[in-house]
Amino acid sequence: MTLSTAFTELFGVRHPIALAPMGGSAGGALAAAVSRGGGLGLVGVGGGERELLDRELPLVSGAGKPWGVGFLTWQTEVRAVEHALEYGPRAVMLSFGDPDPYVERIRAAGAALLLQVTDLEEARRAVDLGADVIVAQGTESGGHGARQGRSTLPFVPVVVDLAAPVPVLAAGGIADGRGVAAALVLGAAGALIGTRFQATAEALVDPAIAKAIVEGRGQDTERNGVLDIARGSLWPSKYTARTLGHPYLDDWRGREAELAAQPDDARQAYQADLSRGRIPPLPVWAGEAVDLITDLPPAAGLVEELAARAEEALARAGGR
Amino acid sequence: MTLSTAFTELFGVRHPIALAPMGGSAGGALAAAVSRGGGLGLVGVGGGERELLDRELPLVSGAGKPWGVGFLTWQTEVRAVEHALEYGPRAVMLSFGDPDPYVERIRAAGAALLLQVTDLEEARRAVDLGADVIVAQGTESGGHGARQGRSTLPFVPVVVDLAAPVPVLAAGGIADGRGVAAALVLGAAGALIGTRFQATAEALVDPAIAKAIVEGRGQDTERNGVLDIARGSLWPSKYTARTLGHPYLDDWRGREAELAAQPDDARQAYQADLSRGRIPPLPVWAGEAVDLITDLPPAAGLVEELAARAEEALARAGGR
Repeated sequence: MTLSTAFTELFGVRHPIALAPMGGSAGGALAAAVSRGGGLGLVGVGGGERELLDRELPLVSGAGKPWGVGFLTWQTEVRAVEHALEYGPRAVMLSFGDPDPYVERIRAAGAALLLQVTDLEEARRAVDLGADVIVAQGTESGGHGARQGRSTLPFVPVVVDLAAPVPVLAAGGIADGRGVAAALVLGAAGALIGTRFQATAEALVDPAIAKAIVEGRGQDTERNGVLDIARGSLWPSKYTARTLGHPYLDDWRGREAELAAQPDDARQAYQADLSRGRIPPLPVWAGEAVDLITDLPPAAGLVEELAARAEEALARAGGR
Repeated sequence: MTLSTAFTELFGVRHPIALAPMGGSAGGALAAAVSRGGGLGLVGVGGGERELLDRELPLVSGAGKPWGVGFLTWQTEVRAVEHALEYGPRAVMLSFGDPDPYVERIRAAGAALLLQVTDLEEARRAVDLGADVIVAQGTESGGHGARQGRSTLPFVPVVVDLAAPVPVLAAGGIADGRGVAAALVLGAAGALIGTRFQATAEALVDPAIAKAIVEGRGQDTERNGVLDIARGSLWPSKYTARTLGHPYLDDWRGREAELAAQPDDARQAYQADLSRGRIPPLPVWAGEAVDLITDLPPAAGLVEELAARAEEALARAGGR
């Protein structure tokens, strides 16, 4: 048996699993491994810096499997999207911002348009823009997401009803086969998975970060804007990031506005703390499902494993 | 086909569905209807005031179906639990507080012990205390829950792994058959459902509240401690309540500590606003899945409907 859905049919992949295009960690090698395992690998390219595209996309574009690329909509520009399209992705995913300026180019190139949404207004807009797939992201997700986020379990079915017949992927809080199965019974056509794939052989993460994810607990994650402000990041304030614990969260929790009022001072202090080693080089972006992550497998085998466990979970719950 | 689980077998019920024992709305008539529909009806009795027990429990205890009763652990006392046990419940559920003083009495009476937990420490404690069933409550739930809550989708499988072989019910964010199916594939033995049953013919709720639930949207719910403080409620500050919008939330959002510093003034102002009709008689406790609630059916039929739709969701996702 395989789990056939509108998503697997659209892309001709074996499993209803996509790699979340995490900037900095979901590079071409990881995307290629996910696609090789039967999922859809999406390279995370942030705004789409040319050097990054030219380094990572060749690692996946020649592998003969469906793959895609994911941009931060607020950070990118038409030129970057057009350059990525030259590598021939089957899918382009846009997250966090107004997708309108990019939609026509993506469609004209024959790539499928994946739009990530964090609330029902964004979901309606994605339908209106003609998304081929809508990614419904819950607040459990690691890394960036809506400040006032919805939880995946009650959010996904509402987006599914709103978007039908457009297929929906569930994102946020999914790190094992049971979570993939939950996405499917909620009506999604698959799961978009991030944190779990950060702890794989092919992820572009420092070993210290992989270790932190394997050891991390969901209850130690929190969604906060403090680290973006301190890092001098330009993320819109609508979005915060879920990370594991960090000294700056302890120092500034609940005082985000105060920190934001003096952004230059905050950034200087953060840089000084970085250079004297008081804080780690990067925050550990991680989702609430981090409890379920206890190893660092190769990503292709992980995709097969997630799909096999999802089938088992469905069969067990269905009484077979 | 029926969905047989460790929960349905333990209680001899047809469907893996339990009524959340919501104080004030899950009375004996609603619990009886849920049990008649093939689920497990649990009467919500708060601290277990004698008059309430003697009014509500006879409505369900004579109906010849398995039923139970749910207490707020921080608010009850041994005498109240003992009085409820005289009515012969098959299950006693304890939520929010230290269950230890009540465990032996419940066991001695031959009732099953259901312990609700909101984090992994509480889950470990529930296993140590010999819970027969553990209810893992996510932050999506309506009404009271942990201030620093976990989301249902990633929380349930972790509790399932920790508690095995003790069966787990998933609670929070479940309002339709897809949510029940999600609970099962996540490894739970069933779903404990609250808000959805508030919008039924038998719930003890004012028609205005039922209407607010039918019209409410998940994105308008929020978890906050403001209303407990203003109402002069004695809820421990570890727990907050998820409600639909309320003037006091707009007035005091983000200034809970300020409100709590002058509790008498806050309560007087609230009472004054109540008497002049500026605020509704009660907050509308509602979970994030309120989007999925659009009607006011009889509860017994709703149980059957939830189970049938859950079976369909499992069959569809499993490719049958």
